[in-house]
Amino acid sequence: MTVIALDVGGTSMKGAVMSGDTIVHAERRPTGRDRGPEAVVGAILDFAADLKSATKPVAAGLALPGVVDDATGTAVRSANIGWENVPIRDLATERLGIPVVIAHDVRTGGVGEAARGAGRGVGDFLFLPIGTGIAAALMINGMPYPGTTSWSGEIGHIVVRPGGEPCACGACGCLETYASAAAISRRYHVPTRSPIGIWEPPLPPETPAPAEEVIARAEKGDPIAARVWTEALDTLADALATATMLLDPSLIVIGGGLAEAGERLFTPLQLRLANRLPLRLAPPLAPAQLGPEAAMHGAAVLAYQAAD
Amino acid sequence: MTVIALDVGGTSMKGAVMSGDTIVHAERRPTGRDRGPEAVVGAILDFAADLKSATKPVAAGLALPGVVDDATGTAVRSANIGWENVPIRDLATERLGIPVVIAHDVRTGGVGEAARGAGRGVGDFLFLPIGTGIAAALMINGMPYPGTTSWSGEIGHIVVRPGGEPCACGACGCLETYASAAAISRRYHVPTRSPIGIWEPPLPPETPAPAEEVIARAEKGDPIAARVWTEALDTLADALATATMLLDPSLIVIGGGLAEAGERLFTPLQLRLANRLPLRLAPPLAPAQLGPEAAMHGAAVLAYQAAD
Repeated sequence: MTVIALDVGGTSMKGAVMSGDTIVHAERRPTGRDRGPEAVVGAILDFAADLKSATKPVAAGLALPGVVDDATGTAVRSANIGWENVPIRDLATERLGIPVVIAHDVRTGGVGEAARGAGRGVGDFLFLPIGTGIAAALMINGMPYPGTTSWSGEIGHIVVRPGGEPCACGACGCLETYASAAAISRRYHVPTRSPIGIWEPPLPPETPAPAEEVIARAEKGDPIAARVWTEALDTLADALATATMLLDPSLIVIGGGLAEAGERLFTPLQLRLANRLPLRLAPPLAPAQLGPEAAMHGAAVLAYQAAD
Repeated sequence: MTVIALDVGGTSMKGAVMSGDTIVHAERRPTGRDRGPEAVVGAILDFAADLKSATKPVAAGLALPGVVDDATGTAVRSANIGWENVPIRDLATERLGIPVVIAHDVRTGGVGEAARGAGRGVGDFLFLPIGTGIAAALMINGMPYPGTTSWSGEIGHIVVRPGGEPCACGACGCLETYASAAAISRRYHVPTRSPIGIWEPPLPPETPAPAEEVIARAEKGDPIAARVWTEALDTLADALATATMLLDPSLIVIGGGLAEAGERLFTPLQLRLANRLPLRLAPPLAPAQLGPEAAMHGAAVLAYQAAD
């Protein structure tokens, strides 16, 4: 009994035919957002239909970016793709002739980690992928809590530095402006344009160094890299302390590109989080186990549920 | 069919026999925490037993302060009362011979507002009483979400001013140090001890003015009162924006003593909240409807559920 699992990103789509948690067939295609939102919808439907022809799947799960209303099956909005209120579940159901479920990509990743990854058997936890952006899935009893308007988990846009750096969202001091992989790279690159103090830092690379290189430079003693990385850790700990006081999760699963830093992220972050929670024990932090395939696995899990 | 509803506070206990949402008999007794935690447990059991003798209740609901494990029926910890791991549900069940349910006081207040107050028919909302302290109940589908260790909703101890005023909890810059009714009173009283600037403020009263008087003075142009009240509104809006981005509630119900300020609180706070949420609509704010009886009503609702 196979299902189709599709994870639509801003740049590319990952598709798979899965049998249980085994990938029978995997394929990647460009999202093609430059051709407009209608073309993207067409590309998604074509991709799913092609995957369907390879086998006889019983259902399909689609993980989508932006604001997604799981209940009505609508892609409500995505700044990246540019669509608005696309009834994509109905469109895909009509095209494929099998049950289709759609869900928000981060929350679908949470479903994947809950069923097949670091959140197995945990029930209530926070899934936090950190990459270009930062968002969270609030997992309750193994399933994501979407909030009342599908807007829960926007931890990347909680303010951790009031009056701080302006964020693309229009607010100032959002977590995402300090601690996303993109922010770490950008913040290392920018300050060296206007040197501070009397110490001459090593010249930065012409193109912004990726976050992993900033972390490596911080560990080698580059003071600007150290400052950027320290502030990323501090603001992440601030935001996780806030989420812990509000939600009381039993575990925080961190994924996305930044989790690749491994112990260089987890050890100092766990210590900082404990320091920020004088009233209570800090929940343990754990690395995500499914990497970039979390949402694809989650889409498969949801598809199997839809087939029942 | 009546139930017993008991709301245990740090100073006094409110008890009632209720028939539906009608109070058949109401009584108030001192908690007597100065006589130690064992005496408090005894006083609670005596109070419940006396209420029981007046009628034939089918169940009892107890709202308790501190950390409460609803599932095991344990009063885990209360700094105010000084108890630790008291199996109070079992003790009360044995004493009363009817089903007993215990729950955290703020969350029980949320149950009251959900069933009989401002949260009727709303499903998912945030209940936020602001008094001596600030805590929240995360209402999902009409019932409070306690978190994984009964520690959810501690919005009073999320940091809104990093490196700000020290809080009794051990952290700095917690919401509670700026925006609780107690903090507003204290912060108005304290700065006048060391005058700032050249403007001579009107002498403050010898005893700290209550929050409502600070608000009234702010409206009359007292600059120190205005500064204290403005910072309370600002930090409240900051915290509510954070909670909104994480939880996406459809409504925020504000209760406790500070809600008595009415439009002087709700109008500027709603505006500030909207300003802090550039990405999304702000959830509406609404005053609690049950006032100080919210937890008693909630205890009755839980008691009726336990009787079923």
